[in-house]
Order: sequence, then C-alpha cells, then structure tokens
Amino acid sequence: MKTPESEIRLRLEKLRAEMRRQKMSALYLNKTEDVFYFSGFTGSESALLLTVKKQWLLTDFRYREEAEHSAPLFETLLCKGAPPVFAGELAKKNQAKTLGYSTALSVATLAGLRKGARGVKPVVADGMTEKLRAVKSQWEIKRILAALCCAEESFLAFRKKIKAGMTEAELALALEWEMRQRGAEGVAFELIVAVDANASRPHAHADKRKLKKGGLLLVDFGARLGRYNSDLTRVLFLDSIPKFWQSPYELVLAAQAAGIAKIASGRPGKEADDAAREVFAAEKCEKLFGHSLGHGVGLEVHESPRLSKKSVEPLQPGMVVTVEPGLYFPGKGGIRIEDMALVTETGVKILSQLPKNLASAVI
Amino acid sequence: MKTPESEIRLRLEKLRAEMRRQKMSALYLNKTEDVFYFSGFTGSESALLLTVKKQWLLTDFRYREEAEHSAPLFETLLCKGAPPVFAGELAKKNQAKTLGYSTALSVATLAGLRKGARGVKPVVADGMTEKLRAVKSQWEIKRILAALCCAEESFLAFRKKIKAGMTEAELALALEWEMRQRGAEGVAFELIVAVDANASRPHAHADKRKLKKGGLLLVDFGARLGRYNSDLTRVLFLDSIPKFWQSPYELVLAAQAAGIAKIASGRPGKEADDAAREVFAAEKCEKLFGHSLGHGVGLEVHESPRLSKKSVEPLQPGMVVTVEPGLYFPGKGGIRIEDMALVTETGVKILSQLPKNLASAVI
Repeated sequence: MKTPESEIRLRLEKLRAEMRRQKMSALYLNKTEDVFYFSGFTGSESALLLTVKKQWLLTDFRYREEAEHSAPLFETLLCKGAPPVFAGELAKKNQAKTLGYSTALSVATLAGLRKGARGVKPVVADGMTEKLRAVKSQWEIKRILAALCCAEESFLAFRKKIKAGMTEAELALALEWEMRQRGAEGVAFELIVAVDANASRPHAHADKRKLKKGGLLLVDFGARLGRYNSDLTRVLFLDSIPKFWQSPYELVLAAQAAGIAKIASGRPGKEADDAAREVFAAEKCEKLFGHSLGHGVGLEVHESPRLSKKSVEPLQPGMVVTVEPGLYFPGKGGIRIEDMALVTETGVKILSQLPKNLASAVI
Repeated sequence: MKTPESEIRLRLEKLRAEMRRQKMSALYLNKTEDVFYFSGFTGSESALLLTVKKQWLLTDFRYREEAEHSAPLFETLLCKGAPPVFAGELAKKNQAKTLGYSTALSVATLAGLRKGARGVKPVVADGMTEKLRAVKSQWEIKRILAALCCAEESFLAFRKKIKAGMTEAELALALEWEMRQRGAEGVAFELIVAVDANASRPHAHADKRKLKKGGLLLVDFGARLGRYNSDLTRVLFLDSIPKFWQSPYELVLAAQAAGIAKIASGRPGKEADDAAREVFAAEKCEKLFGHSLGHGVGLEVHESPRLSKKSVEPLQPGMVVTVEPGLYFPGKGGIRIEDMALVTETGVKILSQLPKNLASAVI
C-alpha cells in the first residue's frame, strides 16, 4: 500500500523541526526503513539528502520508474558517481553548513560524504529518525494491525496442523507458509519454534527436534506485511499440560498483566519492566527472566522505545510495544507470552487478540 | 552441515599468510559470512579478532553453547562491554601494532575499536577476505552443488505447477515453497519472477501481474542451503513461443556460450564479458544488455570475482561464477539465461544442468 502524501509531508515537517532544533542544515539518510518512512520510496540501496528547504532521493537507473511512482515529493537523482560523494557535493552546493549522519553508516560511506562535502561540518544525528518513527500515526497503526491480523489468523490455521512427530523446522515452515498465503512479504524475523528444552533459549533456532505428545512448543512469530511488522509469542502443549509447567505459565501471565498495567503515556518504560520483574521476584524466580520486557515494533521489528531496566524516557501516545515476559528453565524448557500494545492518551490498548489462558494452550 | 576443522585451519593459514604479507598484526572481522567462513560459528551479531598467533570469537550469552559447538578452534569470549571496544582492548593487550578493519564496518564500530585499541594503528583491510573466499575448496564446491541441486529440482517441480492466471507473486511463492520443502533455509535473494513487460527490468519485483497464454515468464532464482547460495535464470513461454522472442532467445544463448568459452584460469573476467558483448554487437543490439556478464557465488550470492568490463584480475581455479547475458526490450520484456560455472585448472565446468534450448522453454 502506497504511503499517503499527507503522511509523508507530516513526517518531513517533524524531521525538519528536529533539524532546526539541532541547527542542522542538511541530513543524509540511507537506512532502508528511514528512506521508506520519509519518502515512500520502495526500492533499496538508495539514500535521501534533505536540507531545510529541499529534498532529493539518490538512487540508480534500476529504480527510476519506482522512484517517480513511490516518492513523488522528492527530486530523484540517478547517481553516476559514488552516491555518498554525490550527496556530499549536493549538500555543499546547497550551502549546507552542517551535515547530519548516523554512526550506523559504514566507514566508507562517511568517507564519501566527507569527500563530497569538504568544508561542510559532519555532525552525528544518531537516534533522530528512531525517535520520530517510534510514535505511530493512525495510518501506521492500521498497517501494524494488518500485519498483526495476518500473524494471528495464520497462527490459528497453523495450530490446527500441528501433529506429534513434526520437527521444529517443519513447524516453522508451516507457520510461515500460512503467513505468506495471507499476503505477508515474509516473516518479520527468523521464527523461533522451539520444542521442550530448546525453549529455554530465548533465541533458539528451529532445528530437527521433534514435537512429542505431552511436549511443550514455544512459538515466537510475526508477519511482515506492507513493510510493517508484528511480533507475538505463544506456548502450546500437545495433548496435556505437564504439571511442572502450570505454575510458571500462570506466573508469566501474571507478570505480563502487571507490566501492561504500568504502561502509560508520560511514564518511563522502566516501570512496566519493573512491575513484571516484581511478580517473578515475589516467587523468587526473577533470575529465570534474563531479557527485557519489550520493544517498539514498526518498520523494524525491534525499534524504539524499549521496556527495560534502562528505559527512563517517558512513553508517548502512538507508541507500539511488545510485552513479553518469560521464565526459562535450562535443560527443561521455557514459557514466554508476548502481545503487542498501543500507548494511548489515557492508558494502553492491547492490539493482539489470540487466546492465552492456560486452557487455550492445549492442542 | 558443520564445516570440517581441516577446512577452517586451511582458511586461517591463508588469512594469516595474507596478514603477514601486509605486515598486519591483528585483524577484526564482523561480517556474518566472514565470521562463519573463518571460524565455523553459526550465530550472528558476533565478531572475530585474530592476531598472528591467537584467535577469539566475541559473542554474547545467547550464543555460548552454539559458539563452543560450532567454533571449537576459537576461544569464545562473552562480551560484557561494547564488543568493538573489547576487541580493540584485546588487540592492544596482545601487543598488536596494527589492527586491520574493513571500511564496511559502521562508523560506531570503528570508533569502538579505536577507543579500545589506543596506540594501535588502524589499517584498512578491504577486499582481504573477499579475495580468499573467492577461491572455493572441494568441500565448498560440494556445498554449492547442493544449493544448486536444490534450486534445480525445485524449478523442475515448479514448472509443472505453472498455470495461466497465476500472478508473479504466486509464482514466486510456489517456487520458494519447493526450495524450502527441499531443505533450503530460504531463497538466496528476492526471487525475480517477471511476466512479459516486467521482464525488461533486470531487478523487477514479483507483483500482481498475471501470466497469460503466449506469455513470457522470466525466473531468476536461487536457494540458500547450508549457508551457500545458488543463482540461475530461465525464461519460459506459456503454450508457445511468440515469433518476436525466438531470435533474441537464441542470441542470448549464443552470447552465453561465447562468454563461457572465454572463462579460463589465468585470464581476466573481462574477456568473457567482452566475448558475450561482441555476439550482441554483431547483431547491433549490445545496448540492450545493460549489466555485466556474471559474478562470484558462495556464502554471498554476489561476491568476488566479477565478470565485467572492469574485471582485469586473472581468474583462478576454484572460482564459481554466474554467466548471465540478457537482452531487454523496454515495454516488451526480456530474455536472460544464467548458469553457474566453475573455473578449473584446464578450463571451465558448467555446474548447472537445467535444459535451456528454445524447445525446452515452452511449458
């Protein structure tokens, strides 16, 4: 779906306000998500150069048509020389005094910019686009809901196909297939489909391990649809829930509820993380929760803001975050339950709707 | 499949020989393919630090088990601080005088290395690993053949499922599905599945365009299996071959044969590119061939060497390249035929076996 021009205009206004605030006269962006967000351009390996008044899309002949169609607010330049040098020259020609760049740029790219823009002062612009992208518009929330809906419907169809004897890799492919059939460009990240002990590792690879009766299956999944991502986790049990897992499952649900209750506009993400951790601490199992509570989701599956011990910045309405506490028992397995939530003016709205009570976990 | 230790040892020997040649006392590598190639490590977001005598894998707690299992020749360090700073400190502690890095590193990563390695001179090591990875061992050639075989078998199964009315996106998904079913981790690159006029763009996206009877279908595809890639292109016609396309198809085949005939150990890649271009020039259509003839394939789908106008370095036995001439008619469509070839001591061996004569293009 093409990004409406009104969206792009608003994003550019906010970006320029930030440039003015930082007294930055030009800005170079080449991260795919940034290029798409601020211009609508759907190709890859391209860059934007913005001054306070003008804006260019720097791409190559392969993307000429695509640039005109998808980024009409930008002047498209098909670069002959190395694009960073060209962008630097352009900044210089347009009397830029400072040129903002991200330290995620490659050393070679920054060298090119500097070479083209001799006399222009390079200034670090880290976090500038991330901060703007963290707050979603109504239009973006609809895109995220579409990616979420695709993941949820796919998961419900996938659930029905799970059988004893399937390997993690087969299960992962079956779930991906459901998402692709429903229009997803692909998975939002390498799906984590972990059976039994493998589920004790928060970033397990799907492998040849087979699901058995009475087995635990942790599925951390998301669809990428229209370039926006979704991210969910559910734990399922084949046939019945072993007694061992009942209390950890309920505890993770309780920690998630406690975390969600503390998500609010104007409050730091840290408070939600603390609240979830306290639920575990009360049962003396906080050490089994080794990662942070959540992260922003949008054009990137992990983006600003974070819900972690270090998150002191206040949350803002329009932020979309995951809430994903977990308890991991090395050698045995793990429970993680993850939903997506929207920070609103008055509180928080849970966007995902898949069932998650203990009874719903049995298949 | 786990990389044999003997392979890793040989690769490290060659890398150290190159370090000595360049008088480089330490080298930092963080590109996923380099880390895998020189250590066997199968995780991501990690780095290697090598001195002339020692070698470390810098990773985090998520990958502890995986590191021990997949990279036994390296000492694994689970980094607390920022890994580049840590790597820099390690280089300094080990009396490195110079520290090699690639300009593909991010600005932030290089800053971290410099911070950790104060007093050690950073030196650019661009192209160093690419040059070594360009020449494949027998073991690697087997891996590439497996990825190629997966792509070829998948294509033959896919051919049988092609029907009028299918969209490019549906066709692309059907082919990917065949590859995934045959064990591919994924596609080697975003598959190019282009119908009719869309095939005139060498990097077309698969879209909603439908294949019709008498239609042209260009499929540029590859599987990624065991981390190695394959890359092939075929053009198919549904029901019959329109007269317009017969002569371009035969001409592309002839250009490919001319290019292949000039691939030889000790000769520059340029000669193959020239030879293919001359076939087109003889028919006054060289302007319809706007890209280079081929590229190396291995852990990356585009890597050293290149077969282009600029390729003056001599080819070496063990290099694996694509040979992919094409003719593109804007608004009408295009023909590209791509095979994979191995440079041998005595000439060249075509690795791919899919039929490609004109008769075989009709489905």
